[in-house]
Amino acid sequence: MKLRAFHKLSYGLYLIASEHEGKKAGYIANTVFQVTSKPPLIAISCHKDNMSTAVIRNSGKFSVSVLKKELDVKIIGDFGFMSGDEIDKFNQRELMTAKTGAPIVLNEAVAWFDCTVHQEIDLGTHWLVIGEVQDSDLLSEDDPLTYAWYREKYKMFSPRNSPTYLEKDKLDEERKEDEANAPQEEPKHEGAEPHVCLICGFVYDPEVGDPTMGIPPGTPFEDLPEEYKCPICNAGKDYFRKV
Amino acid sequence: MKLRAFHKLSYGLYLIASEHEGKKAGYIANTVFQVTSKPPLIAISCHKDNMSTAVIRNSGKFSVSVLKKELDVKIIGDFGFMSGDEIDKFNQRELMTAKTGAPIVLNEAVAWFDCTVHQEIDLGTHWLVIGEVQDSDLLSEDDPLTYAWYREKYKMFSPRNSPTYLEKDKLDEERKEDEANAPQEEPKHEGAEPHVCLICGFVYDPEVGDPTMGIPPGTPFEDLPEEYKCPICNAGKDYFRKV
Repeated sequence: MKLRAFHKLSYGLYLIASEHEGKKAGYIANTVFQVTSKPPLIAISCHKDNMSTAVIRNSGKFSVSVLKKELDVKIIGDFGFMSGDEIDKFNQRELMTAKTGAPIVLNEAVAWFDCTVHQEIDLGTHWLVIGEVQDSDLLSEDDPLTYAWYREKYKMFSPRNSPTYLEKDKLDEERKEDEANAPQEEPKHEGAEPHVCLICGFVYDPEVGDPTMGIPPGTPFEDLPEEYKCPICNAGKDYFRKV
Repeated sequence: MKLRAFHKLSYGLYLIASEHEGKKAGYIANTVFQVTSKPPLIAISCHKDNMSTAVIRNSGKFSVSVLKKELDVKIIGDFGFMSGDEIDKFNQRELMTAKTGAPIVLNEAVAWFDCTVHQEIDLGTHWLVIGEVQDSDLLSEDDPLTYAWYREKYKMFSPRNSPTYLEKDKLDEERKEDEANAPQEEPKHEGAEPHVCLICGFVYDPEVGDPTMGIPPGTPFEDLPEEYKCPICNAGKDYFRKV
């Protein structure tokens, strides 16, 4: 079994939101796909441990916002890597209420779907939730964000509860085996080690710097200002470790 | 409800194959998604009328070949728009037999998955088939084909049995309404009308010509050689109509 084969499956990136008894919940998903045309049914895979899953199942409704390719990634940090217990994810977002009553997050979105829960299938670690689309809108002709593009640009990995989670150690091992006979790279010089954010998996690469935070290429991790924060999840420097 | 919102959902393009009692079947799908990580489960949505669906359900196994971005589109015409009764789809393909016994088509693929059927969910027009990945391989680091890119390049629509099928008339109507207040385009001159292949939906646009068949831009449909065939499904000129 080759784990990296799984990286060749194509996905978009979506913000899924719901509300039950005044409590809003939302998260970032890549597994959103249409499964029938008549009626229009959409499937999403929800980890049983996630708070949003309970809110969706209890309320029987959810919205899907399709994220746009060129976006402010903070929305992914907030909805994808923070818990609703830590921050109010919906504060200062542009929201609307769908026909079903689900909240729709409009920021950074090119389209949205408003769904009622049609069926729930137990898949062990996840519920596969089938939603019937009750309403939809196209907000812009901009390209949607794809998971492949996002992973490439931000060197991201799926969170542990994602249906597409792959263990980084095993991936690295597989890559090392494949590269065993390849010519060796020059060892990196002192201060050039990439650092990974333990909260969200973002990798700070000194060769690239961090243009989103105004850090020029060639800046060693140690030279980052003390107030530097992870551009994805906002974690401080203390949360970074050498890769 | 805005139909074009559905075009913002991102998909790849895959060749799904199976075999039962010596009979091979295969088709092109865009709805292939990983739904859990442990164990690795993949979902595919199969129309009840398609021959391949019966072969997959009877044999309890299937393979998924991930198509590459730059490919010979004939494989999509053969597997996506022709029936196994009309042509032998597997003839002259590079095949291997997976652990499960399913055939894997290696042509134009960057990766493959070999699956046993784990669960089948009745969704009305389709079966949602959940497969457990028993084996996988990465064949190349090339980019996989995405449905958005394919649709853009080949002006394609989903076949009628696809889970993502949208009625072209309704799409056109929606687009017209949206464009009602937009400035009018110059009417196209005689001989510049695009023609659509009734078999597979490919649109021949005289402004573009058909580079894959050696037809230069500016060639009206009427001037195409009589032996011209649809580059996707191989249908003759008689199968084309003005758009």
